[in-house]
Amino acid sequence: MNLSDWPRGIAVISTSEGREVAEKIAKALPNAYLLGDYSRDALDEAFACYSGIVLVMSLGGAVRLVCGRMSEKGEGPAVVVVDPLGKFAIPLINSHWGANELAQTISEKLGSIAVITTVAERKGMRPLEDLARLLYGEFQPKELIAKYYSRILRGEKACAVGFDVPEGFDYLEKGEGCELKIYYGNCKEGYLCVKPYRLYIGIGAKREAHSLRDGVLRVLDELRVPRERVKAVGSVRKEAEEVAKALGTEFRLFSFDEIRRFDHECLSPGSETLSSLGLQGVAEAVALLMAGPRGKLLVRKVREKEFTVAVAGTVEG
Amino acid sequence: MNLSDWPRGIAVISTSEGREVAEKIAKALPNAYLLGDYSRDALDEAFACYSGIVLVMSLGGAVRLVCGRMSEKGEGPAVVVVDPLGKFAIPLINSHWGANELAQTISEKLGSIAVITTVAERKGMRPLEDLARLLYGEFQPKELIAKYYSRILRGEKACAVGFDVPEGFDYLEKGEGCELKIYYGNCKEGYLCVKPYRLYIGIGAKREAHSLRDGVLRVLDELRVPRERVKAVGSVRKEAEEVAKALGTEFRLFSFDEIRRFDHECLSPGSETLSSLGLQGVAEAVALLMAGPRGKLLVRKVREKEFTVAVAGTVEG
Repeated sequence: MNLSDWPRGIAVISTSEGREVAEKIAKALPNAYLLGDYSRDALDEAFACYSGIVLVMSLGGAVRLVCGRMSEKGEGPAVVVVDPLGKFAIPLINSHWGANELAQTISEKLGSIAVITTVAERKGMRPLEDLARLLYGEFQPKELIAKYYSRILRGEKACAVGFDVPEGFDYLEKGEGCELKIYYGNCKEGYLCVKPYRLYIGIGAKREAHSLRDGVLRVLDELRVPRERVKAVGSVRKEAEEVAKALGTEFRLFSFDEIRRFDHECLSPGSETLSSLGLQGVAEAVALLMAGPRGKLLVRKVREKEFTVAVAGTVEG
Repeated sequence: MNLSDWPRGIAVISTSEGREVAEKIAKALPNAYLLGDYSRDALDEAFACYSGIVLVMSLGGAVRLVCGRMSEKGEGPAVVVVDPLGKFAIPLINSHWGANELAQTISEKLGSIAVITTVAERKGMRPLEDLARLLYGEFQPKELIAKYYSRILRGEKACAVGFDVPEGFDYLEKGEGCELKIYYGNCKEGYLCVKPYRLYIGIGAKREAHSLRDGVLRVLDELRVPRERVKAVGSVRKEAEEVAKALGTEFRLFSFDEIRRFDHECLSPGSETLSSLGLQGVAEAVALLMAGPRGKLLVRKVREKEFTVAVAGTVEG
């Protein structure tokens, strides 16, 4: 499991009985955030803002919580339940869309049993949802995702129109020869489309940060951010303008005050150092400020030694 | 696990992938009925008419099915999910209300892993729901069940007013000295009450059945049916009148035609022999016919060698 598979992070929520196990899981996963004890707010935030959710509680309790928050297959976060004693890691929803893998990882870290209940032969299929994520776009109309899935699971091929097929999608082929087509950008009605996001890069940096430009560009490449689609780079540090120049895009300088005033449900919980400055964080806030009210946090802040990078996006058109 | 713990039977439903495992489970459990492949109707019937449900499918699929069908804690059937390969038996809802025990039993029969996720110390508590069942009554108002449970789980005692405490309910004491009270029959507003059912006994019998009276009385005693609350005994066989006499209650004779015309969603699937007679069964149909339109199947037909017995009920008052 690596960072870029969980770009929006993994939220860990527990009942009081499960707190100890929840803390272990949050430490063991590279991109996990302990949202603390269960509350309606914490759960809403987890569903709205994270790629994955780990609920440390009884399965029955977890089922009651997720019912009503489930969306179409392949949409919404992967949810894994871990019992308060850490004995089992159980993919609850979106098993094929990350939950099986997340449960496997947790079971390796905690010595739990991964309770995989989907039939094995299906497990090799790379989730369609990964495609939208890799292309930094979102599927429209979402209702079609489940239909595509069920036909693909029955062995049908789908065609990639207007984009190259990333690795691992054996059921996709380039061209227009299939009945099932996935369009990129310019969509045809009745088909599944990937609408690309306009991208906004937020950068936080220590005052003494060295080689900020090279560091940030390296992270963006690792995240496979398509350079031509970056609309703006923002920061509270003038030095970050070098990144914008390298990408050939606009730079926006923000003040600490603007960031302090900004609130968004998807901002990562802040560290103590940041809190003492009255800040919850910079990179995510700046990226979301630039993306505007319809913006979505696409990559939760990546923490490097001297800087942080986050990506927000809005659907074009 | 014995018969009287699952008086309304256990419904087994599967996807086509899980059919083989579903058949094994249906054979292994004493009171299980294979309702076949998943359909909305089969699921509705299972939720309305059975004490327990086993869903043989992926956990994510099962969650999508049960969401929206869940009632207050302690109400509705216990639901266990078994994956199509039979590796895991997972209590999904109403864990403390039978699902843990059902999953344990299945895991023993199939060699599966029972995925128990509730904290161990709670497992010893005999479910409140058992009380209503043992007293052949139903709780009113149902909204109070969850409140009573949460206070009892925190260590509070509840008082049994107007009935003797059956075995195993350590958190109940006879008397009126507790803040939490459970009344029997004559209820006080604001408290949890057990409203007793009027009981109707349906009897099916082979033409050549011997000692029908003694056999049926033995089964009724095993089921702990309170004799004084039986309002009527019914059958298509005149010989069954002996049972009514022994109980000091009314006997009603039915014709095959009346039974053929009768339809109720909770009738057990019929055997081939019965179907060839144009009948789905006798005991349940007769019991439900006597109980009238508001009647409920309380004990699914118990099959003895030469006869069957079923119990239906309506709430008094």
